[in-house]
Amino acid sequence: MKFICTQENLKKGLGVVSSLAGKNQTLPILKNVLLEVKNNILILSTTNLEMGVKSIVRGKSDGEGSLSVPAKLLYDFIANINTDKVELTQEGVNLHIKTDNSQTTIKGVDPTEFPLIPTVEKEKEFLLNPIDFKQAISLVIFAVAFDNTRPEISGVLFNWQKDKLILAATDSYRLAEKKLILNGEGDDFQVIIPAFTLQEINRILGELKDSQELKIYFNQNQVLFEIDSTSLVSRLIEGEYPDYQQVIPTESKTTIQADRKELIKAIKVASFFCRQGINDVNLKIKENTLTIQALNDQVGENKTSVEIEKKGDDNEIVFNYHYILDGLNAISTDKVELGINSGSLPGILKPIGDDSYIYIIMPIKQ
Amino acid sequence: MKFICTQENLKKGLGVVSSLAGKNQTLPILKNVLLEVKNNILILSTTNLEMGVKSIVRGKSDGEGSLSVPAKLLYDFIANINTDKVELTQEGVNLHIKTDNSQTTIKGVDPTEFPLIPTVEKEKEFLLNPIDFKQAISLVIFAVAFDNTRPEISGVLFNWQKDKLILAATDSYRLAEKKLILNGEGDDFQVIIPAFTLQEINRILGELKDSQELKIYFNQNQVLFEIDSTSLVSRLIEGEYPDYQQVIPTESKTTIQADRKELIKAIKVASFFCRQGINDVNLKIKENTLTIQALNDQVGENKTSVEIEKKGDDNEIVFNYHYILDGLNAISTDKVELGINSGSLPGILKPIGDDSYIYIIMPIKQ
Repeated sequence: MKFICTQENLKKGLGVVSSLAGKNQTLPILKNVLLEVKNNILILSTTNLEMGVKSIVRGKSDGEGSLSVPAKLLYDFIANINTDKVELTQEGVNLHIKTDNSQTTIKGVDPTEFPLIPTVEKEKEFLLNPIDFKQAISLVIFAVAFDNTRPEISGVLFNWQKDKLILAATDSYRLAEKKLILNGEGDDFQVIIPAFTLQEINRILGELKDSQELKIYFNQNQVLFEIDSTSLVSRLIEGEYPDYQQVIPTESKTTIQADRKELIKAIKVASFFCRQGINDVNLKIKENTLTIQALNDQVGENKTSVEIEKKGDDNEIVFNYHYILDGLNAISTDKVELGINSGSLPGILKPIGDDSYIYIIMPIKQ
Repeated sequence: MKFICTQENLKKGLGVVSSLAGKNQTLPILKNVLLEVKNNILILSTTNLEMGVKSIVRGKSDGEGSLSVPAKLLYDFIANINTDKVELTQEGVNLHIKTDNSQTTIKGVDPTEFPLIPTVEKEKEFLLNPIDFKQAISLVIFAVAFDNTRPEISGVLFNWQKDKLILAATDSYRLAEKKLILNGEGDDFQVIIPAFTLQEINRILGELKDSQELKIYFNQNQVLFEIDSTSLVSRLIEGEYPDYQQVIPTESKTTIQADRKELIKAIKVASFFCRQGINDVNLKIKENTLTIQALNDQVGENKTSVEIEKKGDDNEIVFNYHYILDGLNAISTDKVELGINSGSLPGILKPIGDDSYIYIIMPIKQ
């Protein structure tokens, strides 16, 4: 086979697929990218056995053929050459690459050794705006339990409800929930998508910035994402997602509004003085002042005052500073609202002027 | 003691000195910064026992005092607070820091436990332009032998000759030499300054971008750099610097001129195909073409042609790609000149239009 395309298109396709190659260290073949040429297209595929990515590069083909070559090498090579057109030729398991001023051979592997990436029967279909989707994922994904001891919370809950999609993630210390309004009505159903799959799709959406539409298909145990000429297929997580509604506080004894960036600075500064491993910062609300405080016998102590608007009682709570910073950093509004009841009950953080997001944090009990 | 200054000035001073603290991991006290207040100045000092840095912060003092506190903590804290003025107060070994909206205590250590930073008797004095100096150092420092098995080449030779300063560095595989023209005449003499000292002074020059003048003082075994209100003192390296003049080729059988960036791209691409550990790329000069070539039995091979202007014979040489890339990346002119004699004799790389710099590379013999 022979295939001619632009360096730019090939670089873009390899940029999309090559990051997944090599993430599974046990099987050397998974470091490769599969190249399949037919009918003026080149299909690039990589997989880590949990998920698979395919990207189609358009060009001009002469004959059919396929082989797999090291993905990182091919990407690094194509990304660094100075040329408009690239000519790929297969000779056995060797890939020859010709440009105006260079000739290159990359030793490959027989395509039959490359694992099959499953196809998904498109039982349920949803359309989403890629920018909204990417932002929604980044608002919840950091709250996932990445340690895998409880598989059902190592992913994000996708709860489709007629005209909206509710995303939820928790590691049992904090919970993030984001609502997306959908165009048109769909079925009511729930799936859990692995966090690593969503990180990969967000990375791909970052590479394909101009995409207008993200299509998501589901069947019993798989999900398929389609963006332009790229597709990602992944297994779903089996199991029952915890019924988290019960931990969402329905009212707060104390509600404060504060400047988000000022709060981030004050908590970051306090974190230098918190106890290692406990990571505790104390939030004391008195009249119109929030005092953020940390104390470490070996290091010293810090107290910073932040101006607030308060409704309800004076109050006090202790948080792990990582948890509250994660929420504050994910939110993008200028002002945030924090509601608390007591030092032993969860607090609730919201962006002001955006009802679609809540972030619940369990306190450190004193 | 009490000391009041702007957050900006204190942050700048700590930014200059704090990087050195903690580079020596054996003595915990070296992670600290020494604070000394007297006569409306705060002197900040750090040392790794090889060198010491002092920076003066101006402000308003009430009484005298000194103590040392963890440098990284103090820098991180001061860099992250939102305030104009900072008030420092000493209470025993505790440092209290007050701003408009915060109160902080950092636990410190008695100042007598902090190592003495030696003062340098100013026997010989030189003035340099900081920008020229920084650029000259970056042109030679990468060629130093950082492994310390031969101490005399673990630093840069400073060869002062009346109206010029010649800097040289070598690890015995390559050699870089840069000439700086001086204002006024000085003594003829040579010293070897440790590479780590020059890296630190270059980092400090990067922080103090607006500085107009760099003063360098020497005595028998020490060097002192002064920039504005910052000073760095370091030991010199004892020993005889190798007489490197003999390895500089006086003429070349083949001289080529090429575009520097094109050469960098071609060698980088070839490096993906060189043999691991040997890092060999072949440069073949034939008529007006330079062919850069690499071959690895396991990976594949690459050949890239670069247009050149040639004087002399066709020729061929093999270099470690790291060595030639280091030289090409350090040079900033558009075009470079490479002179070679044979595959077993050193090559010489020069920027075109700048006679003050040469870079000699030993070939890999085939």
